[in-house]
Amino acid sequence: MNEKITMAHGSGGSATSELIKKIFADAFKSDIVDAMEDAAAVPGSETIAMTTDSFVVTPLFFPGGDIGRLSVCGTVNDLLSRGAIPKYMTCGFILEEGASVADLRTIAQSMAETAAEAKIKIVAGDTKVIEGAGGVYINTTGVGFIPEGTDISAMNAAPGDAIIVTGNLGDHHASLLATRMEIDTDIKSDNAPLNEIVDSVREYPIHTIRDVTRGGLATVLKELAESSKNVFTIEEELIPVDKKVSDFSGILGLDPLYMGNEGKMVLILPEENKEEALSRIKGSKYGENARIIGHVIKAETKEEEGCLFVKTRIGGKRVLSVLQGEGLPRIC
Amino acid sequence: MNEKITMAHGSGGSATSELIKKIFADAFKSDIVDAMEDAAAVPGSETIAMTTDSFVVTPLFFPGGDIGRLSVCGTVNDLLSRGAIPKYMTCGFILEEGASVADLRTIAQSMAETAAEAKIKIVAGDTKVIEGAGGVYINTTGVGFIPEGTDISAMNAAPGDAIIVTGNLGDHHASLLATRMEIDTDIKSDNAPLNEIVDSVREYPIHTIRDVTRGGLATVLKELAESSKNVFTIEEELIPVDKKVSDFSGILGLDPLYMGNEGKMVLILPEENKEEALSRIKGSKYGENARIIGHVIKAETKEEEGCLFVKTRIGGKRVLSVLQGEGLPRIC
Repeated sequence: MNEKITMAHGSGGSATSELIKKIFADAFKSDIVDAMEDAAAVPGSETIAMTTDSFVVTPLFFPGGDIGRLSVCGTVNDLLSRGAIPKYMTCGFILEEGASVADLRTIAQSMAETAAEAKIKIVAGDTKVIEGAGGVYINTTGVGFIPEGTDISAMNAAPGDAIIVTGNLGDHHASLLATRMEIDTDIKSDNAPLNEIVDSVREYPIHTIRDVTRGGLATVLKELAESSKNVFTIEEELIPVDKKVSDFSGILGLDPLYMGNEGKMVLILPEENKEEALSRIKGSKYGENARIIGHVIKAETKEEEGCLFVKTRIGGKRVLSVLQGEGLPRIC
Repeated sequence: MNEKITMAHGSGGSATSELIKKIFADAFKSDIVDAMEDAAAVPGSETIAMTTDSFVVTPLFFPGGDIGRLSVCGTVNDLLSRGAIPKYMTCGFILEEGASVADLRTIAQSMAETAAEAKIKIVAGDTKVIEGAGGVYINTTGVGFIPEGTDISAMNAAPGDAIIVTGNLGDHHASLLATRMEIDTDIKSDNAPLNEIVDSVREYPIHTIRDVTRGGLATVLKELAESSKNVFTIEEELIPVDKKVSDFSGILGLDPLYMGNEGKMVLILPEENKEEALSRIKGSKYGENARIIGHVIKAETKEEEGCLFVKTRIGGKRVLSVLQGEGLPRIC
């Protein structure tokens, strides 16, 4: 097979079919349900969750992960954020001419391994080719089953709730930035599927779960405060950040509260369940650095609804907004 | 709002949120189920169909359609090809810097209108921005419900079956090519959702349905012959092609059998149901030019399995293969 992607690979003819057979079908062999069909047929459930995400991260390979692993984790974590059990996903590849076939094989293998870890099946795929300089873009769309009685939503945070973050912030962002700047660090991306964390707390009345990705923790919490019309307060000194990431971001003037992650969640749940839930999360894969970082209070005025405050280390109180401007481009 | 897309629109912060609110949420307002959630929660069904497709067509607007309409039709028709009733879809936008916000508004509106026509709900979306020259790429992923007892598959064509094509071939391909070559014709793309056609024949024991897109009819029938291990025979003089498209492709040396379509299907069903089914299809929206074009026979030797033959106008018999090489790049 030609070692670079050409426009012919997007024709829908023999070259497309060869690409699918040799690269994708091979990596996903245990997964793809109906390789020759226009649509896969799979068992359903009474209530399903659906989510979609495209991945344009650059570089394609970075310390701790790659675009393939990232694309599976992103979709799995979005399904988990609705309390769903991840079941099926599709993958749509948009390839630029000149993309390396060897890279694609590695990426497909990484997707297959991550899907196996996250217990989600890849059931359908698509490949298109555009002009360009060898870029790879991946859309993943997921379906999960929502267990009966589950009511986890961005709107559900209630006064008195505790806010838990499942681990250190900023690793993915710092790892990508260091790679692009060719700075030698041992910071690794946190890209990971968080099934175990969510499964560990399903018995508690979790109100809200949110994947903390682009825009960082501050953006996510601000959006959740607005959706629930409450006030969120977090404490700076409780926010977990790895020393290496903290030093790195300090030098560059970055705030870990706005740095992107790909394997972190916030969970919001009643005060009385917080210690038990935290202990379950800390005992789960990828949850060892989880912390309770703040709480939800009732807005006393209309103006306070949707506000996010952070108590600083020196005892001040600062209002946080969503990320303004560019952030780090192409972080996922 | 800035009239061109910038990297900030992909940050996940305030610019992304403004883009979503002003362009997508407005167009899809009756559709998007849970705008603020990581995943949409929707009612499910015992058996579901899933399909994914990315659209990279150029130009974005062409006679008879645009990338928005195309992206909905492609996914709807793939679900219908499995006998599913289209229910939900997601859309993932990958935008190049410099893309026109006004174009995006038109595209989103076109998606909303086509989704309404096809009775499918847009339930989740995602937007990413990459460097480039204003390009727009859309992934659509669909979920449909498969009615109990439905068994429509690429493998099911059986000896004695008739092959129906639902209308004229090559319109989409010819329309795009004429637009790119700036040739003045009144050929229009056939991009259309084919729900009515499929619904009209649900009571017959349809074996196979396939959307005839990239690669054209010959590629699709060759793949179906291979999947079912039978021999397919079609007759050149029965294949419906509009006179304008036939003239246009004749001049350029193109074969309508390999030209792409975006609103055509083949249906394969028992001989005894063919006339009634044809009449139903001809009475359905987008089905008026449907024709019976051939039939399925049993392979007499191992070598014959998966062969596709066409009887030419002058009485010859030619073996057809799948499309080789590039075809027309970025046709969908």
